[in-house]
Amino acid sequence: MNKTKNILICNDDGADASGLYALIEIARDLGNVIVVVPEFPQSGMSHSITISKPLRAKLKTKESDYEFYTVPGTPADCIKIALNRLCKTKPDIVVSGVNHGSNSAISVIYSGTMGAAIEAALYGIPAIGLSILDYSAKPDFSIVKEYGKKIITTVLENGLPHQVSLNVNFPVCDRNSFNGFKICKQTQGVWNEHFDTRIDPYGNNYYWLTGVFKNEEPNNTNTDEWALENNFASIVPIKPNLTDIETLNIIKKWNLENE
Amino acid sequence: MNKTKNILICNDDGADASGLYALIEIARDLGNVIVVVPEFPQSGMSHSITISKPLRAKLKTKESDYEFYTVPGTPADCIKIALNRLCKTKPDIVVSGVNHGSNSAISVIYSGTMGAAIEAALYGIPAIGLSILDYSAKPDFSIVKEYGKKIITTVLENGLPHQVSLNVNFPVCDRNSFNGFKICKQTQGVWNEHFDTRIDPYGNNYYWLTGVFKNEEPNNTNTDEWALENNFASIVPIKPNLTDIETLNIIKKWNLENE
Repeated sequence: MNKTKNILICNDDGADASGLYALIEIARDLGNVIVVVPEFPQSGMSHSITISKPLRAKLKTKESDYEFYTVPGTPADCIKIALNRLCKTKPDIVVSGVNHGSNSAISVIYSGTMGAAIEAALYGIPAIGLSILDYSAKPDFSIVKEYGKKIITTVLENGLPHQVSLNVNFPVCDRNSFNGFKICKQTQGVWNEHFDTRIDPYGNNYYWLTGVFKNEEPNNTNTDEWALENNFASIVPIKPNLTDIETLNIIKKWNLENE
Repeated sequence: MNKTKNILICNDDGADASGLYALIEIARDLGNVIVVVPEFPQSGMSHSITISKPLRAKLKTKESDYEFYTVPGTPADCIKIALNRLCKTKPDIVVSGVNHGSNSAISVIYSGTMGAAIEAALYGIPAIGLSILDYSAKPDFSIVKEYGKKIITTVLENGLPHQVSLNVNFPVCDRNSFNGFKICKQTQGVWNEHFDTRIDPYGNNYYWLTGVFKNEEPNNTNTDEWALENNFASIVPIKPNLTDIETLNIIKKWNLENE
């Protein structure tokens, strides 16, 4: 592969996250890179967009094969402004991450990292979100770098179907116990929240959001949670079509359409 | 139906939106009502959650069958804090809205209104998002009130499958040309953005996000866009399972799992 490929990079942890620099390192080996990331961390920002105030883009670095911009907005904002204003040519691929923390199972819907990937895919660009199950500031990215490059290269070669992105999560394990990729589906489950209730110095309650993921199908070997627990990197193909056809057929019988 | 039903109301336009009061009026006819809404407007906030700062809940009104709280957070935050801290009993239904503006087609993934409904459904509670295709401050809610009550009553009677919510959008038309409900699927399409570029008094560019929805299946009569254009209220059953099984079978052939 030569440097004729154009790669757009985004993330949700902002311009200072070490995961971003791991991804930039991978991408610069593969093509021309343009980085457009939120100015501030945007974890949990999901697919949100900024509509009540205008956006800006700050150019931080410009070389012949590398540009770096920050945007005071969300990950999805970054993709919109990159594709409509900052990229001179349509990127061959968009990669978002490397996120510090898991975006597996239902976390995909809260994830700013995947918000960016899904947004890019809507524009018909192959897109990948990369995450590692390590919330620390300096995770070991050696497996991510090796296998991240494999998946980016493979998608550059094969493309992806219209509006589909890949949600790729990496386990934390040593190289010898890592089992490679597993293609799987999003695990069904929900976060059981435990609000940590405290009282401020003025006598008022406040609540910290914490929670534990409840896996509703722990024995299903085709799920991303199972893959990650067994030291695989999970790959889930994602399409933002939320229609539940099964329910559609149930509620057709409610006779609502005749009222 | 008597007042033994418990109804939790949320929205994304905040505590001052007239659509909220249209919904409260419907709901108070049907049961005990608890309102938990964002303190400030949260349009476009999608399924985002607040994790970098603590949350609070302010009690504004308390009657025997009616409570009203505001939360300085997102719609999904409101649902989490309501279900975990504010509701004394698990609600029989959660209704979000009435949103000022459409949440049909791909807008469902940017919508704070549907973020709240989807969040409630994850907890196993039947949930509905109601929206009207009118962005003004004071839409005519007469059809929404009549048909909103029908759909809430029907869901209270029938329930919904696990983790499914309904995305209900109302057209703007007079009563005589309104055609009732149509059960349909999310229209495939994308927002084509047109960033309105301006220069601030200090010589710097800034961008207003605007856009036009591009319908990729304009002749499909089973879609929510078609229904709304033809003066139906669209009902789309929504489940946040984003796995695209078709692509899963394609990428299985890429041999990634053997590397």
